[in-house]
Amino acid sequence: MDLGEYLFRRLAQLGVGSIHGVPGDYNLTVLDYLEPAGLHWVGNANELCAGYAADGYARIKGIAALITSFGVGELSAINAIGAAYSEKAPVVHIVGTPPRAAQESGACLHHSLGDGNFRIFADMYKSVTCAQANLVDAATAPQMIDATLKQCLQQSRPVYIEIPTDMVRAKVPVPQFPIDLSVPAHDEAFEDKIVDSLVSRIQSCKRPLILVDGFTARFGVRDDINALVKLTGFPTLTTPFGKSIIDENVPNFHGVYLGSAGGAVYQSWVQECDLVLRFGVLGSEINTFGFSAQPQPGATVTFDKYSVSLGTTGCVPDNTRPVSINTVLSKLLRRLNGLDIPTLEPYPEDPFLPREILKSLPEPLDTALIDQYSLWLRDIVMTETGTASYGGQSFDLPEGTTLINSSIWLSIGYMLGACQGAALAQSEMVKDGTRPPGRTILFEGDGSLQMTAQAISDIIRNKLDVIIFVLNNNGYTIERIIHGFSESYNDVQPWRNLQAPSYFGALNGDASYPVRTESAQNWGELQTILQRPDIKEGKGLNIVEISLSMDDAPESLSKFVEYLKKRNSGQL
Amino acid sequence: MDLGEYLFRRLAQLGVGSIHGVPGDYNLTVLDYLEPAGLHWVGNANELCAGYAADGYARIKGIAALITSFGVGELSAINAIGAAYSEKAPVVHIVGTPPRAAQESGACLHHSLGDGNFRIFADMYKSVTCAQANLVDAATAPQMIDATLKQCLQQSRPVYIEIPTDMVRAKVPVPQFPIDLSVPAHDEAFEDKIVDSLVSRIQSCKRPLILVDGFTARFGVRDDINALVKLTGFPTLTTPFGKSIIDENVPNFHGVYLGSAGGAVYQSWVQECDLVLRFGVLGSEINTFGFSAQPQPGATVTFDKYSVSLGTTGCVPDNTRPVSINTVLSKLLRRLNGLDIPTLEPYPEDPFLPREILKSLPEPLDTALIDQYSLWLRDIVMTETGTASYGGQSFDLPEGTTLINSSIWLSIGYMLGACQGAALAQSEMVKDGTRPPGRTILFEGDGSLQMTAQAISDIIRNKLDVIIFVLNNNGYTIERIIHGFSESYNDVQPWRNLQAPSYFGALNGDASYPVRTESAQNWGELQTILQRPDIKEGKGLNIVEISLSMDDAPESLSKFVEYLKKRNSGQL
Repeated sequence: MDLGEYLFRRLAQLGVGSIHGVPGDYNLTVLDYLEPAGLHWVGNANELCAGYAADGYARIKGIAALITSFGVGELSAINAIGAAYSEKAPVVHIVGTPPRAAQESGACLHHSLGDGNFRIFADMYKSVTCAQANLVDAATAPQMIDATLKQCLQQSRPVYIEIPTDMVRAKVPVPQFPIDLSVPAHDEAFEDKIVDSLVSRIQSCKRPLILVDGFTARFGVRDDINALVKLTGFPTLTTPFGKSIIDENVPNFHGVYLGSAGGAVYQSWVQECDLVLRFGVLGSEINTFGFSAQPQPGATVTFDKYSVSLGTTGCVPDNTRPVSINTVLSKLLRRLNGLDIPTLEPYPEDPFLPREILKSLPEPLDTALIDQYSLWLRDIVMTETGTASYGGQSFDLPEGTTLINSSIWLSIGYMLGACQGAALAQSEMVKDGTRPPGRTILFEGDGSLQMTAQAISDIIRNKLDVIIFVLNNNGYTIERIIHGFSESYNDVQPWRNLQAPSYFGALNGDASYPVRTESAQNWGELQTILQRPDIKEGKGLNIVEISLSMDDAPESLSKFVEYLKKRNSGQL
Repeated sequence: MDLGEYLFRRLAQLGVGSIHGVPGDYNLTVLDYLEPAGLHWVGNANELCAGYAADGYARIKGIAALITSFGVGELSAINAIGAAYSEKAPVVHIVGTPPRAAQESGACLHHSLGDGNFRIFADMYKSVTCAQANLVDAATAPQMIDATLKQCLQQSRPVYIEIPTDMVRAKVPVPQFPIDLSVPAHDEAFEDKIVDSLVSRIQSCKRPLILVDGFTARFGVRDDINALVKLTGFPTLTTPFGKSIIDENVPNFHGVYLGSAGGAVYQSWVQECDLVLRFGVLGSEINTFGFSAQPQPGATVTFDKYSVSLGTTGCVPDNTRPVSINTVLSKLLRRLNGLDIPTLEPYPEDPFLPREILKSLPEPLDTALIDQYSLWLRDIVMTETGTASYGGQSFDLPEGTTLINSSIWLSIGYMLGACQGAALAQSEMVKDGTRPPGRTILFEGDGSLQMTAQAISDIIRNKLDVIIFVLNNNGYTIERIIHGFSESYNDVQPWRNLQAPSYFGALNGDASYPVRTESAQNWGELQTILQRPDIKEGKGLNIVEISLSMDDAPESLSKFVEYLKKRNSGQL
């Protein structure tokens, strides 16, 4: 078969249903192999949107791919691949490159820097991908593709595959077996020792805590972690990045661990825990509220995908003895079943827990302005960096909801692009029965939206069902409260956001793809909109613009900003 | 003074009037120094637009600056900086970085990859910038700034300056003198030898040619080159990239050197020249029509900014003996003045020269569809990569027009962003009397426009006067004729392009910034629009959408595509 066919068959076998990207003359011929492989071409308006969308698709479906052109196309997407690398989304970036002879001769080609060096962009990508393959030899190309895709899935990080134009039709053998995805050998004896030690510490502890962070979502252990939370009854917190992994309706779930941005009583309770089971750590200052939301290292057992370690903090866990979190958790659950779990010191009463606040909130007056404090308490999915991501920490999420936010890369504009990818992944999974029906709901800022507004065009082109709440607070509110509140550099050009569907070419009166645009100036208007059955259902494209005050921000953000100001001025 | 103040004072001294960019928490405090330095903040919708705009501004004004945030912001702009590097636009990219202590300790901060490495993005930028400065020490920072800005101007390429948040208010001495911009010492004796040799070859040649390429525009020798063309009367051609540098009204100007994409008679005439004076070479396959538009090396004298060499081809001229093109040209002109210039073999008669075609064209029928063959013969400025850039080769340009196209980087979407920067530079130069009044006119494709549509918002926000012709041919026509003519991957989502001003927030009925949108389906409609005095004047925002056939392309492009197809499939 042709190499182009091989590549796309492998992607399809791993669950990729759609390819994101932008055509270019160095990748046109390989695009011919998409349709025969059963793959859908998304056709993004630009490469940054394509990259973000692939990332969103990967976070829902477990793998995604995008295709760009060499040089210009790939550099436009590199910020998105940085996002996928730092937050561990398995994205395959395929780059159509110039023919081998031209590369070898150092020809002065378009999309190059004109210096005859064709490795520059691949070298840039080395820092943001975990594996690379340059398919210059038909004899090795299939094995290189397989090995690279395996790394993508195992490390849950982007990989980079170059295919020169003259290699697209190179003949390679038809693959006889699926890609070998077996995990690295793990140390069973060490695993058993860990489980022994865990069982003993769990039985003897007085004040335990389970702390679930966001990388846990990449490990494929959601069910086991939830089982552990239910079985032990241990007080459980998530980080901002980890929110939605744990069923928030269990009585021992106590919300987001806010560190110094939360109440002192919770902070000291956590600091005095004698056992913290901490999963999938992302140690960024954003996710830990300025490194304050960190349990005591001595009391902490840190679980990563291939390591379990004691007393580790920071970004990079210790990987000296390979284990598998999947087998460790299964073994632990089997051992704990039937054992007595000690009576525990209770978590402090928490009137700030979303479900508690929600219960206690008075009904807002219809004419009351919409404020950041109470807006967020609705079931929902994606929150853009800025006030939206902090607000989303207060969601009272129904079981089965997936919340996507960014907790280290924080590139504004990401979430709108990712929303297109997530909605597409969701629709494919609903169609093939691997995910129950649900909506894709995005909370987007007015400033962030301007970065990647083209993603709305991509959503329309692919007829994806989304609900977008545009939080319009006249500029970059998160920046205003950090510095320069009234400075013009924190303003944005005021757009007429509800005209987006029309500008981006949504058809008028298309019953197969309805478009609804609404604006809410106050609570009454918003509640009327939210009660509309068609908006609730979320079919087609729904954009609701919500007016918010320029100086209004969620509480956890306002507190955290004090830390950021001090840090940036060198006082910390 | 504060370091932030120093940086912007230096930029203002070099002629920067506006700073492009996007705010972010690592650059907010440095933005406070813009206004006091008399600089205007553009406030772009995203970083790619900011980068492209800075490039366009630099090509008009001679230097530009943009500010982004560390990590996410700078990576979104890196494609634009690649454009500036490959096509030599002097752009200063300032990056607001985390405070030094956090960098030194390898803290896990937002906008980083979480690995404690704060050099990754600067390292990526090394390939696309010619100098870098990381301002971590107040004692050395002023000298580093000065040296970096000098490199930017001398090499006419982007530079990269990092300023950590805690360095913005560091105290540095007030600069007493302007930046030393003196050129490197050049070899006067070698220069004199070159001039002797040139004079002798000019006096003895039979079939000379002057070939002016695009980098000549970066050397500051436009007047001297034009004087040489007039003084010698030598037949003169430009490359696509060099178009608009030479006054096209002189009788010895013969248009664009099309190589194998032009007539055989011209190609053989050039190949048999015994002297070719070739200036500012960009040797890309695009600029040379598949390396076919190259004179014989043995007959060629190649002039670069700091070198003159015999027989050099390709991208990188020989720089072994430093000379200055400025002094060489002055000396040469002085020597030639008064000398006899030989009677020359005439350039073949050229019915394809734009001004000849223009004369011979019949008036189109009003109802005739607008075609790519005759549309382009209007005086104009910026042509986006795609059919527009090839069409622009046929412009009959009035003296003093500046044509901007891309001839190696070819990143679609570039030109709309660059148009914002060019229009801003032009308005500043008209205001301070350094450039005569003129219009900024852009020819943009419907597919390219989608890449960076936000630039229209930036144009409105800054109330810039532009005329945008949107060439709507339903997708990527340049890609269609290369491969996959009817494939859906060459389609784009059809936008309602004339709604852009309204969506991006242009005020209705604002007399100080009028908005006009028109569409032309045929020649009659287009001519009516072009005859409107307000459109002709080009004040405010003017968007004219022109419908073109999906399969219609300028002749030079159609011919060149045959080369590209063969090359990409490995047949060349």
